[in-house]
Amino acid sequence: MGSLDSNNSTQTQSNVAKFNPLDPEEFRLQAHQMVDFIADYYKNIENYPVLSQVEPGYLRTQLPENAPYRPESLGTIMKDVQNHIVPGMTHWLSPNFFAYFPATVSSAAFLGEMLCNCFNSVGFNWLASPAMTELEMIVMDWLANMLKLPKSFMFSGTGGGVLQGTTSEAILCTLIAARDRKLENLGVDNIEKLVVYGSDQTHSTYTKACKLAGIFPCNIRAIPTYIESDFALSPLVLRRVIEDDVAAGLVPLFLCATIGTTSTTAIDPISQLAEAANEFDIWLHVDAAYGGSACICPEFRQYLNGIERANSLSLSPHKWLLSYLDCCCMWVREPNVLTKALSTNPEYLKNKRSEYDSVVDYKDWQVGTGRKFKSIRLWLVMRSYGVANLQSHIRSDVRMAIMFEQFVKSDPTFDIVVPRRFSLVCFRFNPVKEFEPGYIELLNKKLLDCVNSTGRVYMTHTIVGGIYMLRFAVGATLTEDRHVISAWNLIKESADALLKRSYYVI
Amino acid sequence: MGSLDSNNSTQTQSNVAKFNPLDPEEFRLQAHQMVDFIADYYKNIENYPVLSQVEPGYLRTQLPENAPYRPESLGTIMKDVQNHIVPGMTHWLSPNFFAYFPATVSSAAFLGEMLCNCFNSVGFNWLASPAMTELEMIVMDWLANMLKLPKSFMFSGTGGGVLQGTTSEAILCTLIAARDRKLENLGVDNIEKLVVYGSDQTHSTYTKACKLAGIFPCNIRAIPTYIESDFALSPLVLRRVIEDDVAAGLVPLFLCATIGTTSTTAIDPISQLAEAANEFDIWLHVDAAYGGSACICPEFRQYLNGIERANSLSLSPHKWLLSYLDCCCMWVREPNVLTKALSTNPEYLKNKRSEYDSVVDYKDWQVGTGRKFKSIRLWLVMRSYGVANLQSHIRSDVRMAIMFEQFVKSDPTFDIVVPRRFSLVCFRFNPVKEFEPGYIELLNKKLLDCVNSTGRVYMTHTIVGGIYMLRFAVGATLTEDRHVISAWNLIKESADALLKRSYYVI
Repeated sequence: MGSLDSNNSTQTQSNVAKFNPLDPEEFRLQAHQMVDFIADYYKNIENYPVLSQVEPGYLRTQLPENAPYRPESLGTIMKDVQNHIVPGMTHWLSPNFFAYFPATVSSAAFLGEMLCNCFNSVGFNWLASPAMTELEMIVMDWLANMLKLPKSFMFSGTGGGVLQGTTSEAILCTLIAARDRKLENLGVDNIEKLVVYGSDQTHSTYTKACKLAGIFPCNIRAIPTYIESDFALSPLVLRRVIEDDVAAGLVPLFLCATIGTTSTTAIDPISQLAEAANEFDIWLHVDAAYGGSACICPEFRQYLNGIERANSLSLSPHKWLLSYLDCCCMWVREPNVLTKALSTNPEYLKNKRSEYDSVVDYKDWQVGTGRKFKSIRLWLVMRSYGVANLQSHIRSDVRMAIMFEQFVKSDPTFDIVVPRRFSLVCFRFNPVKEFEPGYIELLNKKLLDCVNSTGRVYMTHTIVGGIYMLRFAVGATLTEDRHVISAWNLIKESADALLKRSYYVI
Repeated sequence: MGSLDSNNSTQTQSNVAKFNPLDPEEFRLQAHQMVDFIADYYKNIENYPVLSQVEPGYLRTQLPENAPYRPESLGTIMKDVQNHIVPGMTHWLSPNFFAYFPATVSSAAFLGEMLCNCFNSVGFNWLASPAMTELEMIVMDWLANMLKLPKSFMFSGTGGGVLQGTTSEAILCTLIAARDRKLENLGVDNIEKLVVYGSDQTHSTYTKACKLAGIFPCNIRAIPTYIESDFALSPLVLRRVIEDDVAAGLVPLFLCATIGTTSTTAIDPISQLAEAANEFDIWLHVDAAYGGSACICPEFRQYLNGIERANSLSLSPHKWLLSYLDCCCMWVREPNVLTKALSTNPEYLKNKRSEYDSVVDYKDWQVGTGRKFKSIRLWLVMRSYGVANLQSHIRSDVRMAIMFEQFVKSDPTFDIVVPRRFSLVCFRFNPVKEFEPGYIELLNKKLLDCVNSTGRVYMTHTIVGGIYMLRFAVGATLTEDRHVISAWNLIKESADALLKRSYYVI
């Protein structure tokens, strides 16, 4: 920043003179203060209610209607953070957070994100930040190796990987690649014939991505799954649906299989699904957002069997590999199909490296143009902890989930609804087997409300196969055995109290 | 994290025992170290070549092929950052960076991003983080007020705003909203009739977004612009193209107008374009990614005149409002049209607040499901600096660009190619008026190479209307008058040297 425009009559010299928003010494001082605020927050995080107890609209009454004209001090702002923001947070990093899937973090990832922001490089192409592009390529290969992916997904082989923000973007990009390759042969006006496949357990973002890509809503198949097969997509049923579509003159395009569905962590059988997909020339994408991370442990790697026959894979380290938001790894077997669909080549970004050196320009692997140096975050995680600790971390979460599962199993008033696969336990309160299903659902809803309203634990629910169930997802970075034990005790006490009352009230 | 799985035979107790990746005191210690690294980097940033001088593939030879199995110390990793990463960076925050559009930053935004990461909340719906949703709504209204947007774009009125990652996502989301509203009446199989409009200066991501949304490539109009009208989109020509399309039985859908195009910061006349758009029921999106920020100053606000007749607007504070990547503000006049197109409602996210309290669930305003607490970054910027300083910051950049423009104008061997609007100067070396255009282009390419290869300055080029020109974009946060003066001296010296040599060599 240069000096002020002295012709601006509205300015106040004392406040705005010598405005230097990146003075290194002021930066140093204030950033140190913020580090202490954050370290203290982590230290005291158990003191906050996990689920925020505020009412909608609470914040608007506490903040002014307009941005201030004059600067305010960091002290003033941080008071507002503590008094107005913190009470409105649902504390995702609390060790008592067992909702959704936890978003895991670590010191190393935080430091990596600080470095990413430090440089604030915009890596749309190689030249704009060579280290950023090259580190991303290396980190994607490292993680591919940890997952024992075939060379066909690695830069050191014939494929490659990229960091997306979310699974939604990963699915959208691969779907567009598949769509455009198919339409190149069929002609663009055959878009109406393209059919995409998933199960009724595939993440809701899949249907959205398909609609974004112009797939006709009537051609989006959500194939029913059943409790008997643990809500996994049946290759037999899939094949039948595909055959019907082909018979009707439609063109099968894309299949999204999931390793660890959001509701119950069901696992679609990749190998068998790939057979059908390959036979009908369907792009097979494997969404391993949550479950994929576990596959760095040999005992879970089996779920990726058959991955060599898939076209693409995505996995979100922000879910289970300690890496803060947002970070979704995506690998493709044929990068050129992806970049053909997504590349742009405006004059103002042209450069010799992109033209003559065949470097990777990551803008052609994603929706947007700009992108951050996210790979450095993942690099710091891998190096700071090593594969050994990352495996231990997965195993520890699974071990705690098994402990919780044992608590549930050992209590005759509770059921495990679907088998536990990773670190999510799906269960329900089912104290009297003669109760009607609607009543059980009501009871579990009340139980969930009771538990969450204490602020001591946060869990969520789902309904699968018509069954209302509670989800206990272990994985918040700070969670230890004692938190799981306390949570179970709270659930048990709340259930007992509810049962006592229920004979009179419900 | 709980204790280790002691059955894992591969572990080494000494290394992986008591793995606690978020120990608050270790976090504190390491984060303080990182703050000092970053403050020192900012202090010494002028010592690095702005444009990295490495060769493609340089990094792979310096790092191991696999992630380490055992943890490595922060000291070891930071040595690699300094020795291997920093030399491969193009230093976007260098005060001598005049390429593309600079990505502006500030201490306040860095602190805000630290806070965002601190909480690591995933704000897909209101309940998942009430403060996150509500602060975003407030901040979007604050900025809307600073821009004097009509109430129809504000939550305090009938519209609302959201933070996207990039302009690409903003355009994609609004385009999908427009598309689905149109197809609701026409029927989905009329997607082939939808036509979208922009100029040949509209950002390259626009065409890409249109293709992503399934708009037929033959229906994407890039209307030619001319130097006589400073490369702005002509409402007359637009109207003619629309009329032709309507006559051909096509359906006009979407128009993207730009305030500050990427090549030359051309300004499309919103008010007049809105007339045509409104008449033909075309969704008008205004892409003010770069130029919009200037409109917080009264002297630039005129460029937004007519915005009340647009359907949506996007603006990227990561470009010119000191806010680090990534941060794109998007406002819409009819949020319900957007959310109708983008909403999902999976069971596992259902909650009473979303069902009964009509809260904003931001997942329905964007491509993905997960999202970060980005608004706190923008909130810290606005409060820490106040509107007064943010205006001064814009004015200071513009003043420095005017200074550079004067240098160019006062030198008979240089031309200003298009009028300066904001803080970008488009110019060329044109020493002998009799030179052929191809020769001038060659000369300017050589000049750019000469300047950039010194590492002392980084500029980029563009070609518009067939004219090759150099872009000098002022705006890196640390840039002061002396950097602009040095840059001009370097350009001038390089040009003189080139001219002397050119009589013999070229």
